[in-house]
Amino acid sequence: MRVRASAPSQAFLLGEHAVLYGSPALALSVDKRSHVEASPLPEGEIMIESELGVYKEGSSYNEDLVKLAEGVKELFNKYGIRSGVHLRIRSEVPASSGMASSASVAAAISKSIDALFNLGMSESELLDAVYTFERIIHGRASKTGPACAVLGGVIWVEWSDGEMRATSLGHREVPVAIACTGEPSRTKEMVERVSKLREAFPEVHEGIVRTISDLVFKGREALESGDFRTLGSLMNINQGLLYSLGVSSFAIERIIWEARMKGALGAKLSGAGGGGCVVILHEAPEEVASNLTSASISFPARVSRRGVVLEP
Amino acid sequence: MRVRASAPSQAFLLGEHAVLYGSPALALSVDKRSHVEASPLPEGEIMIESELGVYKEGSSYNEDLVKLAEGVKELFNKYGIRSGVHLRIRSEVPASSGMASSASVAAAISKSIDALFNLGMSESELLDAVYTFERIIHGRASKTGPACAVLGGVIWVEWSDGEMRATSLGHREVPVAIACTGEPSRTKEMVERVSKLREAFPEVHEGIVRTISDLVFKGREALESGDFRTLGSLMNINQGLLYSLGVSSFAIERIIWEARMKGALGAKLSGAGGGGCVVILHEAPEEVASNLTSASISFPARVSRRGVVLEP
Repeated sequence: MRVRASAPSQAFLLGEHAVLYGSPALALSVDKRSHVEASPLPEGEIMIESELGVYKEGSSYNEDLVKLAEGVKELFNKYGIRSGVHLRIRSEVPASSGMASSASVAAAISKSIDALFNLGMSESELLDAVYTFERIIHGRASKTGPACAVLGGVIWVEWSDGEMRATSLGHREVPVAIACTGEPSRTKEMVERVSKLREAFPEVHEGIVRTISDLVFKGREALESGDFRTLGSLMNINQGLLYSLGVSSFAIERIIWEARMKGALGAKLSGAGGGGCVVILHEAPEEVASNLTSASISFPARVSRRGVVLEP
Repeated sequence: MRVRASAPSQAFLLGEHAVLYGSPALALSVDKRSHVEASPLPEGEIMIESELGVYKEGSSYNEDLVKLAEGVKELFNKYGIRSGVHLRIRSEVPASSGMASSASVAAAISKSIDALFNLGMSESELLDAVYTFERIIHGRASKTGPACAVLGGVIWVEWSDGEMRATSLGHREVPVAIACTGEPSRTKEMVERVSKLREAFPEVHEGIVRTISDLVFKGREALESGDFRTLGSLMNINQGLLYSLGVSSFAIERIIWEARMKGALGAKLSGAGGGGCVVILHEAPEEVASNLTSASISFPARVSRRGVVLEP
């Protein structure tokens, strides 16, 4: 028996980093997907194949695959699964790009395990499972990537009673392109850098986070009313605030300023920064994506109607 | 009879733009000076010579020189001077660079007129005179440029009772270099852009200004205790906040990121932005100034001990 699942990835419109300190966030579920095929193995055996290599209990392995295996074991523990599993991963999502490729893969893994072992996981259980993977992989993580991967559509993340909660605002066309620097987004390092800034200059950090929080609320309004010009302005302001948190880079800035020169309504890093991709709001996303000379790869990003799903 | 005066220019360490909305600011008086030679002419005759051309009442003239002439007339009116004046200007300060070349020229003009006509102007009267020139030239202006030009040393600008007040904290060595984009700093346009941002997103603007205000206070402490590492971090944060206000440019960013790659403790635009110069805090300012490939000109900037002075 074998099952297959796929999950979309993420583009962060507004609020990354600040979302770890109480700000809301706004993101898009993007139809670059990760695909996982799962089949059972005898108890105690976990095998993972991806373009990173092959993970097999007790044999040589890749560090990222070890963390995925750790996540699988947690899931097995939680649901009392007494079996092994063979997972084959194929992802269209550039790794370490700020597009939440790990959450996308984790969602497809969780959904395929859910189906394979008839766990009957609810949406919120799937979200929890992916969030658990994310914390194993990144340390401190937001729920934005998991929500993009599981729910699909436009994603709104907000805090309530000290808890981060992610919901889908449903599907909506947003004309964005994604352009990658070719340098990895250094999530853990960037999250730590922002945390150190907070220690060194607490009021400054707090002021930046509060300002980002304000603009994310405004960005949601602009998105919902289709006012892309305002949304773009807010993305540009947000980029400055991310820059002030220390998570931009010259490779990121080169793409951003080129995109602005080419008519972008807004352009900013997407995700943790330090590398990774830039999200560009542009009336002609196909055109701008094919004309950027400073990006290693770039493509228009369709908002995904579907979150994680089983594939035939 | 003829008198000669010279005045230094400015490097903005922290707080530009925000200073127009209640934030304090920290700047350096820089020993790139403007020189003015003044001699009397018959009543009603004003003649100004500079590298921009020659201004003569009723003949063809340069727009910038017209505004200087307007400033001279205001000064004559205020002090009841019934004479004309011939001014020869020679400035070492790159124009439209964010280095307050206009304030530097205005200070040297005011001081030379003060001496030529025995007005006995106090320091605060000189500051007022230069500020008047600045408002004629730039519209909305800060008192930072006038204070750098008149007082010398490290300049602190703060608001009290709804009034901007500038004082000199005295001389102090600060290892900075200045690197110019080769594009003019568009003061009026950038000031208007920030003002429009305030109209569109008042809370966001207020949040940015408040955060800049916080970091300027911290920057003064760091400067006074010689903690250049902290001062540099604050300059980098301030650059992000200026960026979020919409006043950076790709030419500015190119220099900033190159300077950081070359070991800058901090690098940010200086002045209004949109072009102009970058101020770089670096342990070896001579070295970094001579190694920047992305700047049109760059030089180490000595903090000026003297403000505006009469020359022999």
